[in-house]
Amino acid sequence: MKIIVDAFGGDNAPLEIIKGSAQAAKQYNLDILLVGNREIIQTTARQNGISMEHMEIAHCEDIMTMHDDPGAILKEHKNSTMATGLRLLSEGAGDAFVSAGSTGALVMGATFIVKRIKGIKRVALAPVIPTENGGCMLIDCGANVECKPEMLVQFASMGSAYMQQVMQIGSPRVALANNGTEETKGTQLQIDAYSLLSKTELNFTGNIEARDIPFGGADVVVTDGFTGNIILKMYEGVASALLKNIKAIFKSSWLTKLAALACNKPLKAFKKKMDYNEYGGAPLMGVTKPVFKAHGSSNAYAFQHAIRLVADYARTGVTQLVAAQIATQKGMDQE
Amino acid sequence: MKIIVDAFGGDNAPLEIIKGSAQAAKQYNLDILLVGNREIIQTTARQNGISMEHMEIAHCEDIMTMHDDPGAILKEHKNSTMATGLRLLSEGAGDAFVSAGSTGALVMGATFIVKRIKGIKRVALAPVIPTENGGCMLIDCGANVECKPEMLVQFASMGSAYMQQVMQIGSPRVALANNGTEETKGTQLQIDAYSLLSKTELNFTGNIEARDIPFGGADVVVTDGFTGNIILKMYEGVASALLKNIKAIFKSSWLTKLAALACNKPLKAFKKKMDYNEYGGAPLMGVTKPVFKAHGSSNAYAFQHAIRLVADYARTGVTQLVAAQIATQKGMDQE
Repeated sequence: MKIIVDAFGGDNAPLEIIKGSAQAAKQYNLDILLVGNREIIQTTARQNGISMEHMEIAHCEDIMTMHDDPGAILKEHKNSTMATGLRLLSEGAGDAFVSAGSTGALVMGATFIVKRIKGIKRVALAPVIPTENGGCMLIDCGANVECKPEMLVQFASMGSAYMQQVMQIGSPRVALANNGTEETKGTQLQIDAYSLLSKTELNFTGNIEARDIPFGGADVVVTDGFTGNIILKMYEGVASALLKNIKAIFKSSWLTKLAALACNKPLKAFKKKMDYNEYGGAPLMGVTKPVFKAHGSSNAYAFQHAIRLVADYARTGVTQLVAAQIATQKGMDQE
Repeated sequence: MKIIVDAFGGDNAPLEIIKGSAQAAKQYNLDILLVGNREIIQTTARQNGISMEHMEIAHCEDIMTMHDDPGAILKEHKNSTMATGLRLLSEGAGDAFVSAGSTGALVMGATFIVKRIKGIKRVALAPVIPTENGGCMLIDCGANVECKPEMLVQFASMGSAYMQQVMQIGSPRVALANNGTEETKGTQLQIDAYSLLSKTELNFTGNIEARDIPFGGADVVVTDGFTGNIILKMYEGVASALLKNIKAIFKSSWLTKLAALACNKPLKAFKKKMDYNEYGGAPLMGVTKPVFKAHGSSNAYAFQHAIRLVADYARTGVTQLVAAQIATQKGMDQE
């Protein structure tokens, strides 16, 4: 399997991206196609003792930055590393594409270069977030700020396919993020989506209150991109504020420093469980081929995991399953 | 100062409500007017050794339950403890009212029995949530699922008045909850509200991402009630899931149990800082007189704090300030 990598996306590119790619190539027995300036990549690898085994380079000089308008990926930056990587994926030069660059540009590029699965209205950004019993896919999480009920149904269906194939959950519990559990709760969007979701063959378990998400109340949490972003960012914020406080407690006296030593092993395991980097980012769902958004702040370790996840995404044939499901769904999806 | 208390609202009524009221009467030197069945209140107090000093009873037999439609407070339950308490407040029998009963009913009752401040479009539910540097008011938090930009501006103004008067913050930083900091972010609601907020004399600091809320990025976070509910419930959920894990870590071996002892004092202080009960609930903003929603699950301790907060709310004259501010605001508020 060959993974195409945007070597110049994210805050720590290219070094951490190249390093993470090399680790992934070795660890998961993958081929990597790095997209970016050949000379810089080769020099960076050489200077940092990174093996280029199982790694090729597709030379390309332009870069999409975080300051560029997402639409620029189709115009002035149509030859950027991100656009080129997506084009290579679309042409079949690899099995999946991953970038730690601008989310907006990646959604735009994936939609127009790799293209949506026939029948899919919108591409969704869908991270798997840590919960008490493993993880749950939050879909959409920022690609579509305003949504229609039909879009939420497609998100539900795509999320369910992913959790089934990639996370191997038999019959994923799909729930709608809402401000209460009763079916009359929410804005018109939630009320209409609830009604549509009830009619699908998904394992729709109804509304979920935000409080129950971290406890693993659902395997797929369906929401519009605005609310999804709020959920994800609250998760990050509360978790990191709390962990900061716990750290401060452990540092407060010699006694608590000793206590920290005693708790070291389970604390590490817990931090790993909660670690965002273990989850590496978010698959883009609804694209004809696997595209994955790695965190902008990815270090080599996080990027290695992002590659593992996108490889799983490609290996398990989720996009084909989604395409097949959408093709058989009739009536509801007529635009 | 006299606080009117719904003695039959909440999961732990009447015992914990009566106990918390008695503690508050003693601790904060307040008079309490308990609304509810006289015989049950007197028997409960006697059987549990609760002093009725500084506590009167307004007899009333009917109760609004969590299963009743909120609108019932104006119809079949117009003589419930909640409705009666609100009426007593409106008639001047006390300075403020607090209930741990149904939020929807309380919002409805406060709006139609105590009434809104002239010019205020909607009553808002606005808890002060714990942050790294004290607390921040989240307004609205569930009273208004769908909002117009002008409503958000009024929420901002009311929240600012509260944080100034009650929490004694000189110039409260007001921010709009959004999915990014740029002024173009969000749905049309956020885009329009941003533009209106920029023109006010409030200390509007722009958009805030959810991630920055727990770190104290703003003193007032303005949002529609749907999003506010998601923010609040994510806060609760993530915090309680994490604390559950930390507890499990401390219990995992004899060594970590010893460590827990060493960390006991700072951990307790931290738990107190994060404790929802310390915050006791949420003021209803925009009502002509102070009305306060205590948590449904309030125990005596939480309810005592709720009474302290509603007393502060009454003492500092926030409602008068909001009324004066709204009266001087012209042009924007014409309906």
